[in-house]
Amino acid sequence: MPREKELSRRAQWAGAEPITNALMARALENPDLISLAAAFIDQSSLPAEPVKEAFDAIWADPDEARAALQYGTTIGFEPLRKAICRRLTETDGAVAEHPSNVPEKCAPEKYSPEQMVITSGSNELLYLLADSILDPGDIVLCGAPSYFVFLGSLANLGCQAIGIKTDAKGMIPESLEATLVRLRDEDKLDLVKAIYVISYFDNPTGVNLSIDRRKRLVEIAQRFSTSRRRLRIIEDVAYRDLLYEGADLPSIRSFDAEGETVIMIGSFSKSFSPGLRVGWGLFPSDLLKPVLSQKGHINFGSPHFSQTLMAKVLETGQFDRHLQTLQAAYREKLLAFDSAAEEHLRPLPGVTWNRPTGGLYVWLELPEGIEAGTESPLFAQAVKEGVLYVPGELCYPGPVAETPKNCLRLSFGVPPAPMIQEGIAALGRALKAVLPLD
Amino acid sequence: MPREKELSRRAQWAGAEPITNALMARALENPDLISLAAAFIDQSSLPAEPVKEAFDAIWADPDEARAALQYGTTIGFEPLRKAICRRLTETDGAVAEHPSNVPEKCAPEKYSPEQMVITSGSNELLYLLADSILDPGDIVLCGAPSYFVFLGSLANLGCQAIGIKTDAKGMIPESLEATLVRLRDEDKLDLVKAIYVISYFDNPTGVNLSIDRRKRLVEIAQRFSTSRRRLRIIEDVAYRDLLYEGADLPSIRSFDAEGETVIMIGSFSKSFSPGLRVGWGLFPSDLLKPVLSQKGHINFGSPHFSQTLMAKVLETGQFDRHLQTLQAAYREKLLAFDSAAEEHLRPLPGVTWNRPTGGLYVWLELPEGIEAGTESPLFAQAVKEGVLYVPGELCYPGPVAETPKNCLRLSFGVPPAPMIQEGIAALGRALKAVLPLD
Repeated sequence: MPREKELSRRAQWAGAEPITNALMARALENPDLISLAAAFIDQSSLPAEPVKEAFDAIWADPDEARAALQYGTTIGFEPLRKAICRRLTETDGAVAEHPSNVPEKCAPEKYSPEQMVITSGSNELLYLLADSILDPGDIVLCGAPSYFVFLGSLANLGCQAIGIKTDAKGMIPESLEATLVRLRDEDKLDLVKAIYVISYFDNPTGVNLSIDRRKRLVEIAQRFSTSRRRLRIIEDVAYRDLLYEGADLPSIRSFDAEGETVIMIGSFSKSFSPGLRVGWGLFPSDLLKPVLSQKGHINFGSPHFSQTLMAKVLETGQFDRHLQTLQAAYREKLLAFDSAAEEHLRPLPGVTWNRPTGGLYVWLELPEGIEAGTESPLFAQAVKEGVLYVPGELCYPGPVAETPKNCLRLSFGVPPAPMIQEGIAALGRALKAVLPLD
Repeated sequence: MPREKELSRRAQWAGAEPITNALMARALENPDLISLAAAFIDQSSLPAEPVKEAFDAIWADPDEARAALQYGTTIGFEPLRKAICRRLTETDGAVAEHPSNVPEKCAPEKYSPEQMVITSGSNELLYLLADSILDPGDIVLCGAPSYFVFLGSLANLGCQAIGIKTDAKGMIPESLEATLVRLRDEDKLDLVKAIYVISYFDNPTGVNLSIDRRKRLVEIAQRFSTSRRRLRIIEDVAYRDLLYEGADLPSIRSFDAEGETVIMIGSFSKSFSPGLRVGWGLFPSDLLKPVLSQKGHINFGSPHFSQTLMAKVLETGQFDRHLQTLQAAYREKLLAFDSAAEEHLRPLPGVTWNRPTGGLYVWLELPEGIEAGTESPLFAQAVKEGVLYVPGELCYPGPVAETPKNCLRLSFGVPPAPMIQEGIAALGRALKAVLPLD
């Protein structure tokens, strides 16, 4: 046991264990359990061949090979930053020019590699950013529900997350505005440093933020900025490339003409390989220096070797080719979920969900009064039937009393299609056992 | 420019730019400059062949390849932790059994992989540890001079570094004890959380801490522990494997029978490849949980791919084979330094240095009154003559008024032997120009 004065305040705020550990332990106790809980990605989809090709291409030149094994820079490998920015500019440019996608003109400027920082996964980037702009007591607004790992990081920093209502189109601008007005009335506006949004196929709701809301969030953030601090939007696009149906949407960042409001962050963990662990952030120019300085203290640069490989994978077109394979594989899983859900969940009164068109998650709502927490009869029954899910209540910023208990998150990324169907059937049986009879 | 309330206190404490940036800029302005400043490692020594062999061995099995590209765990890849612990136990065991090395019996217990955490380089580990045990206002004791990146991290955390006198045998136990007594008298003892020591071929002094001092540091740390906090020793062994002459010494950790005092941290950045960026820490059992919880918030695990490669490199014996090549290459550079120093520095009155038997650094002392800072005549003269060094004053924890100005750090890792000799000759000419005539 650490003694009284041995741990930092942060380590004490960090809490005993991440909340997912209990779930993992549950899964390990019963290896036959079908996990619709883990947000991991499909092992069989991992790009062994493309990585080998990239490795061999680099190793074909001994100088290039040795350079990959040397120190990199704090900001990250330039060819990688260039490749990512080129891709972002093209993508946002393409959707911006497609009139049916974009009700009003949005003008993505050329995203600059000079403003991009590479990290080991986007989670490190979220922490780095939070560490650079947040002090204990500061406030971040985020969806209710939201990405629970980020909620944990905010608690660890002694910050408060306030949840904003969401619906099938994502974060509700009117709720956001009402919360900001209330905080202004309470004289807390300067403490609100950022709005956190997963703009594509949200974790945990699976929702794609609608185009008009993308625009409105930027407008609201700018309107509630003060002379003492800009209100930033942290736009997390980790799932953007996992698009299975329909058209891509322009990023929130593309509606931020001056580039002073939105910090866009992304990752290749979901779209390529979490083991390489390459993430990135595109920063407003005034934040770049403090963020790099902070990164200089934390690790002065993420692994150069991973960055060199990832750059090669992007430059040679292997990334886009792999993405097509990956999208096809996940599309099949989504269809497997669809048919199983129609069969086993649709007949259950009061059980609803928004069908996603990308990403890895489905958010399920149960009738009022039916709880889904780890201590609930439903959770026990689901484990008994052989399936694991993430209780939705873990994804809400406090206060606990106001947290809906009747939701759950399903991930369809890991199990093969037949197991997804089995898992949904098991969940259907568990729900049937706990739902009131009509 | 960030607005008044836009940056966290940490980001403000981080300061404008790491102090080395000015030096780097200097080097870039003049590409012909011989850098005896950068602590990088010799590019031509980087292990392209061993990494290719390890990669091919992993890729020979498609399942193993895909596993390397998947998420790892927060604590790190188990086979890697096992391989490092096995090596540490063997090394400390071997030197402990050699009576001529060890005046009194030290008993390295079996180091446990369960208490080892893998990070992206040991710098990330230092930050993670500091973040887990230090609050603003806390005190860390370290050598005067000490590793300046760590001094920067401490400042970033709002902590105070207090320098302890060192000599040719490393940190002086009597000075350490006197400082602890003074802090106890000032009622600040509970704020002193750790003693930081680079126990092998110190950065910046090049000194190997003597065996009897290793033992005494543990004894002092334990004696000044209180019921409210243990006083920990952070033993940084980053340069241990860069041994060119003489015998290895037992670690400080091996004198800590209960394993509650010493946190041993290491890295493969210097001994194998900084681009893979694999570092590790061996923790007292009570610190393990808080550190892992903190790491869970920062990045929930360092790149699994690098860890899989590094494990393979260790398991197949490639690491030890590469190390022999590396040691031979650096030994040659050390000899080049020797002969150049005898020729160009020895004749200069009042210029002294301790010749290292490993590592990458030589610490040079100049006569009292001769300053070596970036604004000094010597620095300007050295740049003019074509050589760059690190002013020693950058390596001291404050207060600035008490900081010796007449020292400098030379690194012999990067330039080939003839350039080291040229660089030392240039430094000799610069010194000659600024030293008073006898």
